[in-house]
Order: sequence, then C-alpha cells, then structure tokens
Amino acid sequence: MIYNKDNIYIGAGLLNNLQLITSKLPSNKLLIVTDEIVGHLHLKRVRSALAAYDPDILILPSGETNKNWFAVESILQALLQHKHDRHSTIISLGGGVVGDLTGFAASIYMRGINWIQIPTTLLAQVDAAIGGKTGCNFAGVKNLIGTFYFPQAILIDTEFLTDLPDKDYLAGLAEVVKYGMACDAAFFCWLEEHKQQILKRDAEILKAMIIRSCELKLAVVQDDVHDLDQRMILNFGHSFAHAIEAASGFKHYLHGEAVAIGMLIAARWAVKLGILKRDILDRLCSLIVYFGLPTELDRSICSLGMLFDCITNDKKKRAGILNFILPCALGRVVKVERLETQDLEDVLQEYA
Amino acid sequence: MIYNKDNIYIGAGLLNNLQLITSKLPSNKLLIVTDEIVGHLHLKRVRSALAAYDPDILILPSGETNKNWFAVESILQALLQHKHDRHSTIISLGGGVVGDLTGFAASIYMRGINWIQIPTTLLAQVDAAIGGKTGCNFAGVKNLIGTFYFPQAILIDTEFLTDLPDKDYLAGLAEVVKYGMACDAAFFCWLEEHKQQILKRDAEILKAMIIRSCELKLAVVQDDVHDLDQRMILNFGHSFAHAIEAASGFKHYLHGEAVAIGMLIAARWAVKLGILKRDILDRLCSLIVYFGLPTELDRSICSLGMLFDCITNDKKKRAGILNFILPCALGRVVKVERLETQDLEDVLQEYA
Repeated sequence: MIYNKDNIYIGAGLLNNLQLITSKLPSNKLLIVTDEIVGHLHLKRVRSALAAYDPDILILPSGETNKNWFAVESILQALLQHKHDRHSTIISLGGGVVGDLTGFAASIYMRGINWIQIPTTLLAQVDAAIGGKTGCNFAGVKNLIGTFYFPQAILIDTEFLTDLPDKDYLAGLAEVVKYGMACDAAFFCWLEEHKQQILKRDAEILKAMIIRSCELKLAVVQDDVHDLDQRMILNFGHSFAHAIEAASGFKHYLHGEAVAIGMLIAARWAVKLGILKRDILDRLCSLIVYFGLPTELDRSICSLGMLFDCITNDKKKRAGILNFILPCALGRVVKVERLETQDLEDVLQEYA
Repeated sequence: MIYNKDNIYIGAGLLNNLQLITSKLPSNKLLIVTDEIVGHLHLKRVRSALAAYDPDILILPSGETNKNWFAVESILQALLQHKHDRHSTIISLGGGVVGDLTGFAASIYMRGINWIQIPTTLLAQVDAAIGGKTGCNFAGVKNLIGTFYFPQAILIDTEFLTDLPDKDYLAGLAEVVKYGMACDAAFFCWLEEHKQQILKRDAEILKAMIIRSCELKLAVVQDDVHDLDQRMILNFGHSFAHAIEAASGFKHYLHGEAVAIGMLIAARWAVKLGILKRDILDRLCSLIVYFGLPTELDRSICSLGMLFDCITNDKKKRAGILNFILPCALGRVVKVERLETQDLEDVLQEYA
C-alpha cells in the first residue's frame, strides 16, 4: 500500500510507479537534477523510467560544501540552455542538498516552475524534503538565502535507503529522534522499542518510521509555513547544529551528526536550568549512542570561541535576542528567551 | 486625502507622513536601498524622516544594465554585513529597477524579510511596484529569475514626479496608456481628454491617473497572482517590448519606450489580422505620439533578425507555443495562439 497525503507518496519501490508523478506534469519538458554520487547509483533507472519525456540531465558535485549560489546558477543555466519555459518541470533526485538547491532554482526561474522531489537519503525523506524550505549557503552562512516553495509531489521510495551508507543513514536518524523528543513521546518510545529493527533497516519499520516523521513535521509546518512561531519547535538542537556546522567549515560533521550533538547540548542545558529531568536526558543520550551518532563536540575541529560566534550570528534571532528551544519532557520543548550565555559556556565546558 | 487600499498609499507629500509605514515595522532594524540618481535627490529627506531608526544605507548603480544578480548579491551582503535578521525591514527607494532588485533580495534573504516600497518614478508607481513581481535579468534574459513577493506597504508620493526627467515621465505614461487600451475604454478616453494636464503633471490629475492605473492592475493581479492566465492581458505590448530591450542590449530604450513601440506592433498586427479597427490603432498611435513616445523601431539599433530571436525566446511561451496579446477594441485584448510569424515579419517590414 502506497501512503499518499498532501501529494507525498511513501512506499517501497515507488520508482516503478512513476505514473504517480508523470500525471502531474504540465508539459513534457523535464530537467532532472542530481549529484555525482546519487546519479551514479540511481540516475539510469529514473532516466529510463522517464525516457518518453527525453529529460535533460544536470549532475551537480556532491556535498554540503557545494550548497552555494554557484550550484543554483548552474541549474538556472541548464534550464535556460535547454530552453525550459514556465511550464517545464524540474525533478530533484538526491539528498537534502540537491533538493534544497533544486527547489530554490525552481522557485526563482521565471518566478517559479513545477518541481517534483525524489529524496534519496533518510534525512531528506523525513526532513529536508518536507515543509517547503529551499535555499543555499551564502557568504559562509548556512541557508542564508532561499524561499518557501512547495513541490507538486514528493516521491519517497524507501528502497533508496537499502544502499545508503551507514554514516548517512544514522545521520538521518538524528532528525527522526528529534521528532520523538520534540513532538511525540509515544513515537520516542516506539523508536526505543524498535531500535534494533531500525538499525537493520527492516522494510516495514522503515516505512512506519518515515510516515510518522513526515506526519509530525507536516502537522507543525501546516500551522506555520513561514516559520514565525510554532515551527520553531522543530529547531530543537538546530541552533547549536548550525553553529557546529559553520564553525567546522561545513566539512567535519554531517548535518544529522551536528543535530545529535546539538540536541544533547540543549538537553544538558535544560537539565542544568532545572526544566528537564535527568533521566530523559539519559534516554535521549542512550538512543543517540545506540544509533552510533556523536554525542560530544570534537574541540580539535571546532573551538568553543568559534562556536559562540556562530551561535550569536544565528539567523533566527529576533531583534538581537537569541531564542533557544529546550526540551522540558519527552515529546515536549519550550522556547526560552534571553538566556545568559554564561550558562551555555558552562554546559559546553563540562561537556566537550 | 490619502488614498489607501491594500496597504497602497497614494497622495502628494506622503514622505512627510512616514508614520504610515513606521507603524508597520516589526523591529527597528532598517536598510534603505536606493540608486545613485534617486539617492542624490531624495535620500537625505527619507533618511532624516527615519533618523530615529538609524537606518543602514545601500546605494546601487543606476539603470537597467545594473539589474543583475551582482546587484541582488550586494543587497544580500549589506543585510548580512549590518547583521540584519528575519525581522528587519528593507525599504526600496527608487524606480522599477531598484524595486525589483530589492524585492527579490527581500524575498530570499533568510527566506523572506519585511519590505516597504517607495517608488519614485511614474513607471514604478503605476506598474513595477504593483503586483508582487520581483527579479533581475540573468544571462542576458530580462527578469529571468525572481519571485512573487508582496511588500508590507507601498508609499506612492506623487511629489516625486515633479522633478522626474521628461524622458522617464513619458516612459511611465506608456504603461498608463496600456491600462486604458487593455482594460478600460473609459480610462483611455479620460487620458485623451486630459492629455494636456497629464503632460503638465497637474497634481490632481496625476493622483487620479495613478489611482486608476493601480486599481486596474490590482483587479487583474488579484485574480491571478502567479501570472498563469488572466494576468497575461497586462502583457499587451510586452512580448515585443522585452524582445526590443533584449535585442538592443537593454541600453537604447527605456522599458516604457519599448512598451510604446510594442503596443503599436501588436495593434498593427491586430489590424492586419482583421481583429482591430483601424481607427482604434490611430487613436492609440496619436496618444503615444502626443506623449512624445517612440512609435517605430530604430533598425540601426536593433535588427529584425535579432528581434525575432528574442521574441521566440520569450519566457512566457508555453510548451514551445508563443502567445500574443493583441487588442480587439478599446479596453479589450485577446490572447492569440499559434500565429504564423511570417505575418509578424510583414508587420515589422512595413512598419520599421
């Protein structure tokens, strides 16, 4: 059974069901954007499934360090070069980086063309592809520019996860753990109960895990598309994660790895402030350890000073005030304003 | 009396009423973007009226040739450099180019910040500032990239028009004539009746003319924000105008001048096809001549061959089919598809 809600399709082997998306094409002009790694693994299949459309192809260099305006420009140039018009469709085949870059290009080319997402990593399937955020890094700041733009369809084929490298799969699990910790205590418990099957990538468990993650994210996003209020609960662990990524030059940690460390910084700070019980921190830490994710910042990669600079430049501060999302119970977070960063320094000193 | 509808304020001397916009600022972080020419004339007044906010300032080079990604990037860099966050406001003070560039930057910086428009040319006041289109030229194609993004407020101070150079004022009148010709026969007749006062820039006539132009544009835009259907009637004269501008390297014609020529190409073609009466073409031509706008393409600037190439690359074609908006009566246009370009060649050969 293929899950289908809000034009998000989730199931195993959906690549064999591409009529799900071809029925949504306003014209037969297609550009497929992928990256070197994903292209090598999956482009042939997608291309032959869409052979009737004779799609144009663009292969981007892989990785977060290439998530910049030059990549967006190369997509725009490819659209122009192949004479794509306002009724063309752009298909992104890849992880979060390819999806964000392609969605951004789709949203600004001729002020917006059709876009279909085929996320191929766990992180993209449960997070990056859901919620309409597109963008790229700019001037060294993560996702400094971008748009809110929704694809016409998102095709989540869980079979892509079969050959996803462990490191990437585990990084995706960090966002899954985040949904449990920030939004849904029952889901957190379900993750604890099924952690073995999750690591084994059991097909049914994977599908259930992805469906629940998407549902949780969509529920939050639908009330606050433009990220002005409620959506910030999904930022749990992310103020720190973005700072960790920036301070380490977007090279040393995968986003999900930085999120794992960021969630633990937030949870330790919450314990220190007395708003979270110690045993919840311990359960979070255990699950993160079980999933093979880092729990501590490597100071040889990123100094505390650099981390502080990056945290205080976070784009989500308002009128100079930094807000932090801290956990207060299983499945519940609170927004805390005007915290003294001295506390944070103590947390990091103890912990790193 | 200040006209106010949909956060569009129209009147003489509104710069003395900046509380109209300051009441809409979510924080006191402001960046004013203007260009060299407008900055020289008006920045001092705007800056002092907003002195309490200590606004940051960015002055762009003037002109359509600078309507490119580099200019957008310079706005993004200024926002970053002055540590603007998601609750900052960007004010555009200038003509269509400054407005489109600034709006585009506002729409993508941190996925969208607040934006207030203060259009200073007639063309910007009646057209560019209304309807939510932002963007810049890219790879030599006019407005190839951009977004649909609406400012929080538009302040149309008709006093800016007092010292607008004749050439720019007249270019703006081309868009005003377009509204009459494409949407409202009574307004076209009103323009004919008041053409003398219009050229004299009579304050009351100016205000009435701008209000009606904005109303006509808004009525069309509100039914079709994303320019998929009804909005294309505003494209009357513009397929040709964009091609004329591109073929002449965005240097020789102001946009409004190109629109005047484009409207006449469309009307002559319509007469040739038998869908428009000759006397309506003559009235359109007379008004354009009275307003001192060009009626013929200068072939020493732009060859027919180049013009054709540019027309067939127009971004509004759908699935390879070019649509043209041709007038069929005073205040009425029709969309015509699949026209033989041989006809067009004949029209241009006779006419240029």
